[in-house]
Amino acid sequence: MIDEPARVLYTQGIMVIAIKKGTPPEEMRAFADILEQQGVTVHISEGASQTILGLIGDTSRIDEERLRAQRLVEKVIRVQAPYKRAHRQFHPEDTRIAIAGPDGGTKYIGGGFLGIIAGPCSVESRDQIIGIASAVKQAGAGFLRGGAFKPRTSPYSFQGLGEEGLDLLLAAKKETGLPIVSELMDISHIDAFDEVDIIQIGARNMQNFTLLKELGQRRKPILLKRGLASTIKELLMAAEYLIAGGNEHIILCERGIRTFEDFTRNTLDLSAVPALKRESHLPVIVDPSHASGLAWMVPALAKAAVAAGADGVMIEVHNNPETARCDGEQSITPEEFAGLMTALRKYAACEGRSL
Amino acid sequence: MIDEPARVLYTQGIMVIAIKKGTPPEEMRAFADILEQQGVTVHISEGASQTILGLIGDTSRIDEERLRAQRLVEKVIRVQAPYKRAHRQFHPEDTRIAIAGPDGGTKYIGGGFLGIIAGPCSVESRDQIIGIASAVKQAGAGFLRGGAFKPRTSPYSFQGLGEEGLDLLLAAKKETGLPIVSELMDISHIDAFDEVDIIQIGARNMQNFTLLKELGQRRKPILLKRGLASTIKELLMAAEYLIAGGNEHIILCERGIRTFEDFTRNTLDLSAVPALKRESHLPVIVDPSHASGLAWMVPALAKAAVAAGADGVMIEVHNNPETARCDGEQSITPEEFAGLMTALRKYAACEGRSL
Amino acid sequence: MIDEPARVLYTQGIMVIAIKKGTPPEEMRAFADILEQQGVTVHISEGASQTILGLIGDTSRIDEERLRAQRLVEKVIRVQAPYKRAHRQFHPEDTRIAIAGPDGGTKYIGGGFLGIIAGPCSVESRDQIIGIASAVKQAGAGFLRGGAFKPRTSPYSFQGLGEEGLDLLLAAKKETGLPIVSELMDISHIDAFDEVDIIQIGARNMQNFTLLKELGQRRKPILLKRGLASTIKELLMAAEYLIAGGNEHIILCERGIRTFEDFTRNTLDLSAVPALKRESHLPVIVDPSHASGLAWMVPALAKAAVAAGADGVMIEVHNNPETARCDGEQSITPEEFAGLMTALRKYAACEGRSL
Amino acid sequence: MIDEPARVLYTQGIMVIAIKKGTPPEEMRAFADILEQQGVTVHISEGASQTILGLIGDTSRIDEERLRAQRLVEKVIRVQAPYKRAHRQFHPEDTRIAIAGPDGGTKYIGGGFLGIIAGPCSVESRDQIIGIASAVKQAGAGFLRGGAFKPRTSPYSFQGLGEEGLDLLLAAKKETGLPIVSELMDISHIDAFDEVDIIQIGARNMQNFTLLKELGQRRKPILLKRGLASTIKELLMAAEYLIAGGNEHIILCERGIRTFEDFTRNTLDLSAVPALKRESHLPVIVDPSHASGLAWMVPALAKAAVAAGADGVMIEVHNNPETARCDGEQSITPEEFAGLMTALRKYAACEGRSL
Repeated sequence: MIDEPARVLYTQGIMVIAIKKGTPPEEMRAFADILEQQGVTVHISEGASQTILGLIGDTSRIDEERLRAQRLVEKVIRVQAPYKRAHRQFHPEDTRIAIAGPDGGTKYIGGGFLGIIAGPCSVESRDQIIGIASAVKQAGAGFLRGGAFKPRTSPYSFQGLGEEGLDLLLAAKKETGLPIVSELMDISHIDAFDEVDIIQIGARNMQNFTLLKELGQRRKPILLKRGLASTIKELLMAAEYLIAGGNEHIILCERGIRTFEDFTRNTLDLSAVPALKRESHLPVIVDPSHASGLAWMVPALAKAAVAAGADGVMIEVHNNPETARCDGEQSITPEEFAGLMTALRKYAACEGRSL
Repeated sequence: MIDEPARVLYTQGIMVIAIKKGTPPEEMRAFADILEQQGVTVHISEGASQTILGLIGDTSRIDEERLRAQRLVEKVIRVQAPYKRAHRQFHPEDTRIAIAGPDGGTKYIGGGFLGIIAGPCSVESRDQIIGIASAVKQAGAGFLRGGAFKPRTSPYSFQGLGEEGLDLLLAAKKETGLPIVSELMDISHIDAFDEVDIIQIGARNMQNFTLLKELGQRRKPILLKRGLASTIKELLMAAEYLIAGGNEHIILCERGIRTFEDFTRNTLDLSAVPALKRESHLPVIVDPSHASGLAWMVPALAKAAVAAGADGVMIEVHNNPETARCDGEQSITPEEFAGLMTALRKYAACEGRSL
Repeated sequence: MIDEPARVLYTQGIMVIAIKKGTPPEEMRAFADILEQQGVTVHISEGASQTILGLIGDTSRIDEERLRAQRLVEKVIRVQAPYKRAHRQFHPEDTRIAIAGPDGGTKYIGGGFLGIIAGPCSVESRDQIIGIASAVKQAGAGFLRGGAFKPRTSPYSFQGLGEEGLDLLLAAKKETGLPIVSELMDISHIDAFDEVDIIQIGARNMQNFTLLKELGQRRKPILLKRGLASTIKELLMAAEYLIAGGNEHIILCERGIRTFEDFTRNTLDLSAVPALKRESHLPVIVDPSHASGLAWMVPALAKAAVAAGADGVMIEVHNNPETARCDGEQSITPEEFAGLMTALRKYAACEGRSL
Repeated sequence: MIDEPARVLYTQGIMVIAIKKGTPPEEMRAFADILEQQGVTVHISEGASQTILGLIGDTSRIDEERLRAQRLVEKVIRVQAPYKRAHRQFHPEDTRIAIAGPDGGTKYIGGGFLGIIAGPCSVESRDQIIGIASAVKQAGAGFLRGGAFKPRTSPYSFQGLGEEGLDLLLAAKKETGLPIVSELMDISHIDAFDEVDIIQIGARNMQNFTLLKELGQRRKPILLKRGLASTIKELLMAAEYLIAGGNEHIILCERGIRTFEDFTRNTLDLSAVPALKRESHLPVIVDPSHASGLAWMVPALAKAAVAAGADGVMIEVHNNPETARCDGEQSITPEEFAGLMTALRKYAACEGRSL
């Protein structure tokens, strides 16, 4: 389901350890010896009163925290990223995620292919999901999204239709030929996701490591959303959990981070797009609907995402935002979505890309 | 396992809706009628060019998002908190969590009882955990903590001993009589936690709603840690998930939030202690070890936590922080812990409390 | 220097006050009477156990803090923004800032005109500034930026050439015909800025109210940068200080906010562009150089800014970033700038705008 | 006015530079030579494909930004703090600020002496300020605070009585013998501050470098408040501006930082207290009133501040918070302050300190 990329050898990392003043030289050397047994080369730079150790080699398995706990260590600095297989050095070309459509064709995200994912926050009824699916397909969307299991802040809010929602989503897939994206909240539901084409891991589950380990064992494409308070590095480490297990079919998704600004629900961090694309080979899409929480702001941010180099966008579309059972405030109508698609085609064309 | 408190009726909430300018009066009134069918009273205040609706009654089941999606709505403001049973109005007295010790006695946290929880980040061996357990018990700790299933940012870091770790923890409980606290990462491990006295839900799982719903069905005390980017209100909403399911045995835990400051691992938000205690009846403890990530800072912050009114602290203690398999940098030694206990007794006594 | 816009009456605001339970009705009514004397209408909505007051009218002069300090007040909510003349309701059309060029022509920013401001972080020498000015002019920049007085975190860093720097900047203006933009750090330097076309107020001075009041008395265009930790609302309140004094020649500038993410120097908040343009009539530009602190990221973010609807961008350009006396890491070369201009023209054309 | 401390030599710093892969060795060595000319020793650690340079010596004058702009540089890491004279290594003992009272006696803050500063947000009238001054003196406050020049977010809010306010403050000083603290917003007002004992630099002016440079030339004690979005390191760099100019009479003040949490006005970062006291020799006080913005929370946070090791607290006290012209919501009454003083004495005594 993923193109097999050429691999490059990735063996070099660098860590620097500042040693506390007054550490006896023999103690320092003994420490350096222990480090060398972990497969790195240690260079000692001694100053008049302070010394630093430079570690060169495969530092990805060296545990920073453990180093920091050593009595003779003043500071530990990792120059190289702790992720390895998610890193672009490991895989210099863009990874392209291939998804087989029900109609036999194949769709791609990444490597020059823009993925446009659209649909309602939650699946509500057969008519609703098929209606929206048909409308977004006609406007040019490549994928249908729809929530069946919903993470809600309040236990008193609508929690999604569950498996029934997935069934309706599959009906819409059958009807329109659009591959579907839906959020998995717990590994116990995994069996119901067999025919879901892309499994979404939500922001609140980005560091649900048990879930990531399980999904690492599968070969299903994963849309991994950045956590509200997760750094770019942590997002790549979460992807590393999946790749370490063997699943490289990952689409990263920037969806806003939590800051002091409360005009928007979250603060969309579009710098994450060029940052992730430079650091990693994985495709990166943007979700302006959840980032802003404001339907009127979605078009401006979607255009900006494409201009920033994103490999796609995920847009909440609802035929009747006023009656939506969740996130109506941030959903645009099928008509607005069609207008946005027209605009996005122009923006994509600025760099010779097409939707 | 929890004292049955006297209940008070909690029926009153307030929401305010600003209506967009130019909305026809009849449309507004029809909207007000729909709202009144949801069990609230609606007061209409009309100005020269703008109107507001005041909703009074039980607003906890009214979905803000859905209101915001209405075409005629400009803004929605909830004056009352969306949590209900976690709110102090629902239960004016402090909730006191009772935990039966293996020696037949009962220990409490909350309602004037300070809970001192100490132990290593992760269980590493029989000798290690029994050694630390004995030491912290002698210094006066009331509970033993120890991680068996560990959430780690990197897939290449030590992930905990798993069930074997729980067995060793139980051995330490048997040996010392200390009730034990350990983190549950996934509901699939729940059976192994039968004899764990307090189940910890980690910061990254605070909004794992599937897990919260499951634990709401049980009667086991839960130590619920605040998420890195979770507001005080969201922490109480997570507690509401548990209480809505029927489990009121909840200890809230402030453990630092993520901010721009990087001197400490996280920023300990001690304001959360008086805030949570005013808003809710649940006990509140503080984890200065994870908040700061710096062993030398733990005593100052633990004292401050008690002075701020916390119902306890959770402290990482390791007999040999340098060899700790995780979080050694933030662990204090049993000797340092004993010194801290002496200090905490003095601070607790300032308000007539005892450890 | 600014086009005189048609004014609209702006008289309506809304505030809501929740009254504490148990407040005697006569006390509440007396309080409402006092509020009405401040020129608003007060609507009282009484519930079974709680009451809210709705204030309608010109609430901009009502002091929220003072209300909050009242014993009978539980909560105060302002539905309308506290800024008034910066608000789009006060001035529905886009404000267009007109700057007279030394060659007799007039340049505009806002109201459909994109302002491209380019130049070095700091003026270093006559050759440097004239060289860069000529290069960016040729590539299509409309304005030259250059720092003479530099705010630096460390007292040991280069602090700018001061008045000599301004003289060199004026020489470059004379040579190239480009209007100039430079930062004013203290009102005591104001006389030296007589021939500077646009005075920049830096992020650290956004809430230097003494400075804002002084500049409100002048008729010089002000480029007002958003503070690192300032909300969109606070940026508009800072603009309100200028307008309240009589100076409406304001260009707002988004330049990144401080968040937990440290991959970039700051987090560029592009949502601020549509937000500010909806809330206010003032033009909004974006500074991707200071936001990211990374030269390689500047082009992606500049394109995204234009796509998000910005009225211009401010770009750091240096002929030799390696020897730049400040901010070399974030400066692009004149060649890279020329390439970026070509791209920005395409992006501007997507909405029918031209540079 | 400051005790002359014994000085220690502070000469050692460490920086690490990672060199980009593929850099020719001769280019790297030429770069190292240039660095050595700046007075540091450079150690080169070469790996199979990457190289790092370790700089040891006085790195405080090496400009990180300039290094980062070099083509061959991949990353720059400063192991040592960039502040020098504010660092505890420069001055191992606690600095004690001495303030002469009008009655001939001397009061201290730091070095074991707790400074309790109390008073209203703003001076409003002769009766108000003398009344509050007398009350807080009787309760045991050592210093009187009162604002004359007020930084206000809105131009329509009360801006302080200005010089008249300072005159009233001086009258209160004469009447009660309490040294006074008041905020200076602009250097142009400095003459009016001649008899003010401690000049406060507000959070918004912490990086007003022009102001800091001017105050560095004077010998007046400065109470330097941490900026809303300033790191601990930046606060110390701001202090370094003052010390570099020759003024070492500095009291640092933690007053809350801006985070996503909006329950409190700001998030009080009590970790800053042990952090600043470890990094620097300067005294550190805490302002729980501005941090929380909530009068009811002030006592809990003030106690926590003392428990965390603060050298004092600054508390807003108003005889009639309801009529206060600013910040009434966060002011406690003289009676509440007297109760708090009784509590603080107990907490100070826990470590053998007295108020």
